[in-house]
Amino acid sequence: MTTASTYPGLISLIWAGSQLQLLDQRLLPEETVYLPLTDAEGVWEAIRHMKVRGAPAIGIAAAYGVVLGSGLPGQEAPDDSLGAWLGRVQETAAYLATSRPTAVNLFWALDRMKARAAALAEALVPLDEAKQALLDEAILIQSEDEATNRRIGEHALELMKDGMGVLTHCNAGGLATAKYGTALAPFYLAKEQGMNLRVFADETRPVLQGARLTAFELQQAGVDVTLICDNMAGMVMGKGWIDAVIVGTDRVAANGDVANKIGTYSVAVLAKAHGIPFYVACPLSTIDMGTPTGAEIPIEERHAEEVTEGFGKRTAPQGVKVFNPAFDVTPAEYVTAIITEKGVIRPPYGDSLKKLFEKLKQG
Amino acid sequence: MTTASTYPGLISLIWAGSQLQLLDQRLLPEETVYLPLTDAEGVWEAIRHMKVRGAPAIGIAAAYGVVLGSGLPGQEAPDDSLGAWLGRVQETAAYLATSRPTAVNLFWALDRMKARAAALAEALVPLDEAKQALLDEAILIQSEDEATNRRIGEHALELMKDGMGVLTHCNAGGLATAKYGTALAPFYLAKEQGMNLRVFADETRPVLQGARLTAFELQQAGVDVTLICDNMAGMVMGKGWIDAVIVGTDRVAANGDVANKIGTYSVAVLAKAHGIPFYVACPLSTIDMGTPTGAEIPIEERHAEEVTEGFGKRTAPQGVKVFNPAFDVTPAEYVTAIITEKGVIRPPYGDSLKKLFEKLKQG
Repeated sequence: MTTASTYPGLISLIWAGSQLQLLDQRLLPEETVYLPLTDAEGVWEAIRHMKVRGAPAIGIAAAYGVVLGSGLPGQEAPDDSLGAWLGRVQETAAYLATSRPTAVNLFWALDRMKARAAALAEALVPLDEAKQALLDEAILIQSEDEATNRRIGEHALELMKDGMGVLTHCNAGGLATAKYGTALAPFYLAKEQGMNLRVFADETRPVLQGARLTAFELQQAGVDVTLICDNMAGMVMGKGWIDAVIVGTDRVAANGDVANKIGTYSVAVLAKAHGIPFYVACPLSTIDMGTPTGAEIPIEERHAEEVTEGFGKRTAPQGVKVFNPAFDVTPAEYVTAIITEKGVIRPPYGDSLKKLFEKLKQG
Repeated sequence: MTTASTYPGLISLIWAGSQLQLLDQRLLPEETVYLPLTDAEGVWEAIRHMKVRGAPAIGIAAAYGVVLGSGLPGQEAPDDSLGAWLGRVQETAAYLATSRPTAVNLFWALDRMKARAAALAEALVPLDEAKQALLDEAILIQSEDEATNRRIGEHALELMKDGMGVLTHCNAGGLATAKYGTALAPFYLAKEQGMNLRVFADETRPVLQGARLTAFELQQAGVDVTLICDNMAGMVMGKGWIDAVIVGTDRVAANGDVANKIGTYSVAVLAKAHGIPFYVACPLSTIDMGTPTGAEIPIEERHAEEVTEGFGKRTAPQGVKVFNPAFDVTPAEYVTAIITEKGVIRPPYGDSLKKLFEKLKQG
């Protein structure tokens, strides 16, 4: 485990003995409120309503949600048995899987928790030990995410030079993960190393994760960040201010198609038109070899009110038709490289991703 | 003059005897408030603070502002003389020219009012008749704009087919002009003719003219309109929903470069990448043959607060750096055609615009 005592960011998820302290990201940057979550329903609701967001953070929250829904070590239900507990783990995981459809880390974390519980049950580990081991698995998912993100940041930083302008969309930062983030990890590491990067943060309508979260966490960390509206991305590229784009992702398909926050595709097309490299940063857990192409990634549509009254004030006429997809898919042809904890992956992704996962399986 | 009794839209500027009734567009769509303006200062302030916006509407407001600042017919100042009045016209025009820098119609309308006043003074027209004639000139600017826009709409409609999806950015609608608008004129005319167009309106951050004004005025008129966030434009193009883009403009340079609301350039690049025609609709008064290229068009930068607290609530961290240009320039190479009251102008614009204006000069 890499220690991270220098990490200047807010921590989005804190396991606090018998409850999950979850930073309510909908209230940032105005208020820093941690919600105490003590059951799976609370975790489901927090994921659904984007109090926690960002693919890795959602996965971590869901892992703790499985623990909260199936029983903590030291907690005994009257009819408790290893079999009943395993059933509760599976039911809770199935329930949490319904909270949001797009982020594959959610399913990845739930599968990992289910597999761990099944192995513990099969090994006939005493129930309370099994509960503790499952909690340890959730904690491990969180700490592995932090180490993964530092490695992603190191690989990403190899692609950047002092003084570069880098545009990012949405928030794939420390708040979206255990720490550091994926797309924002190089900015934290650059700061640690005294390297200057000028970050341009798209505000990212409708929910403004770029304004509320990315600008906030980078500013807090002393990174040079400039906030722009999404529709200014083309202009700043045209001015020559942007040398690279880096974004996170909610799911990468086996062919390298990338699902990410709505607007990412527009940014990718603009980057290509301006000859600017477009990088996607993510842990391997976000790459879903079971999804052949982006066409198979379900794209969540959200309420019209996020667009028409997203800020507590109506900004569009009553009853107007709205199209509000939460994500879009950027075809692999727009992706210059995918930056993972195992290094920088280049096209053609169908081959390079397949080889990477085969090698990992063998290794 | 084309009569327009069927025009279903709100009227943004109404000359009411001795004052200008100006629809406060910042309060739409929630409130419909007309501000009674009785002096040039009120008009300057309304332009500067975007209570009136849209290049043609700004020009009309400024024309009335010259009348209000130089004296109404029937109003006498103690030291009134034709020479003093002409001085007041010139001073007021110079003052109003400082209200906003980008829209050429503002300067066009002010020049036209100054030229009219100078001619009246030179002809030694009695002062009160001169004042009336100058007011009539402002009224003529407004009524000509309505007729111009209907013709723009007719030419634009020739480029569209029943059932087409058309994306627009910002508001170049009836509210931005005397009536009909420029980019939105074909949608009103299509409606009159029973032709169905599916309009997609970019909300247009930071001031949301697309959500507050375009979606509002088209919905009021019964046009099929769907509101999207700016960053969704790429996705809806990728889905094949968009057959054409049409936007207004604040100034066209002699080479066909187009200044328009921030985000227009991004839309133009996206349209080109998707093989979608990108049309610019404007009256000839918006084409400035005195500006060689887009590089010479001054681009206004506005307050950071439009981005950080545009919705009445702070949505970005305190003190964050913001880049907030009000306009961008779309190079001529992205512009499929410029649609004017004199017909559809095609590239190369350097030649076609020059020829058009030479022809008009010859009569």
